[in-house]
Amino acid sequence: MNLLLLDAADFVADDRVLLRDRRLTHLQQVHRAEAGEQLRVGRVGGNMGSGQLLRLDAREAELQVSFDQPPPAKLPVTLLLALPRPKMLRRVLQTVAAMGVPRLVLLNSYRVEKSFWQTPFLEPAAIHEQLILGLEQARDTVLPEVIIEKRFKPFVEDRLPQLAAGTLGLVGHPGDFAHCPRAVTEPVTLAIGPEGGWIPYEVDKLAAAGLQPVQLGERILRVETAVSALLARLF
Amino acid sequence: MNLLLLDAADFVADDRVLLRDRRLTHLQQVHRAEAGEQLRVGRVGGNMGSGQLLRLDAREAELQVSFDQPPPAKLPVTLLLALPRPKMLRRVLQTVAAMGVPRLVLLNSYRVEKSFWQTPFLEPAAIHEQLILGLEQARDTVLPEVIIEKRFKPFVEDRLPQLAAGTLGLVGHPGDFAHCPRAVTEPVTLAIGPEGGWIPYEVDKLAAAGLQPVQLGERILRVETAVSALLARLF
Repeated sequence: MNLLLLDAADFVADDRVLLRDRRLTHLQQVHRAEAGEQLRVGRVGGNMGSGQLLRLDAREAELQVSFDQPPPAKLPVTLLLALPRPKMLRRVLQTVAAMGVPRLVLLNSYRVEKSFWQTPFLEPAAIHEQLILGLEQARDTVLPEVIIEKRFKPFVEDRLPQLAAGTLGLVGHPGDFAHCPRAVTEPVTLAIGPEGGWIPYEVDKLAAAGLQPVQLGERILRVETAVSALLARLF
Repeated sequence: MNLLLLDAADFVADDRVLLRDRRLTHLQQVHRAEAGEQLRVGRVGGNMGSGQLLRLDAREAELQVSFDQPPPAKLPVTLLLALPRPKMLRRVLQTVAAMGVPRLVLLNSYRVEKSFWQTPFLEPAAIHEQLILGLEQARDTVLPEVIIEKRFKPFVEDRLPQLAAGTLGLVGHPGDFAHCPRAVTEPVTLAIGPEGGWIPYEVDKLAAAGLQPVQLGERILRVETAVSALLARLF
């Protein structure tokens, strides 16, 4: 936790917050904070700044806070991910939030196991929790938008062409394709497939919606690794 | 598992292997393989090729194998990592192997908790297991060399200058430094710090050994994400 992220419910006055949840535990056990200390704080969806720890006891922490810095810029990207397996999903949500992706679409694909859609990690509160962990890690305050699309064809045919309009559309896909470009300056729509990859029908459909296949070399990477590698190469 | 990785003990003849361990379970439960099927195989430290599944029962799988393709090229990099916490270590070892790092140094740092050095995940067999998982993921056969250095100063003063000689030496470090270069053509020695970062003394020592600090933007990334992001940007 490199940033103490505060939401509206934490405020007891404009410049005063009370914490009683895992953030209190973190301050006590990991940070081993003491009264008087200055901590980096951020307001969810707002600015970052600093907080002085006024009081820390077993029950709660009280901080006086001020906010004067904007959060870091987001990447100009919409990321489409075939829904990863639940354990991977949690980490990917953190990575996506940490790297500054502003919009994530979790999409069905032929090779996404049906059971993945039943995971409690797709509940809004569970997604929110992982995104917050990613923002705390990277020092950002702005939650990415997460869109869930359980049907591939209607999304890719009807909604993706508008989402991708005016952007560089790319599909990360192993094979004899152009290498993923580097240091692009325009906004990007990037699709990353499931374990085992998109099937040819899906690659064709994504191409018809304006997303061209690009490769990242011979190695097959896990979804989480591919996400950070492709974003780091693109931006 | 995108590659069935075989070692000397699996061979009952030059072109014949018997599998009885987790690879058998994987073939049965995840791959749902059937006799007659062709599978991608690789020989640890050797070539890749294909294997025909001759027989699969509850007790063992028998394959006829041949090897005709070299494994993918490694990256020209030596990666120095401050020892991550045990859970992260396992994933980082997989990522390092998957991305094609040929040499990894796990190094002490002021911000590495002493207890991390006690983890059973640092046992040679445990390291080997995670590296194999990474190679199976990425389709590679060549195990990275892993060097464990429990003392920062003697390593950085006495051995690092030779390791880094003739390479582009870089330390990933947040702050007002040059941005990490892209698409370099020379070999690289890259150091990535612990959670919380290197302390200034360590950055100075690494610089004296020939490694210059570079940044990857304002965001603080987890070690695993930083590894894949920096490697994807560099190569």
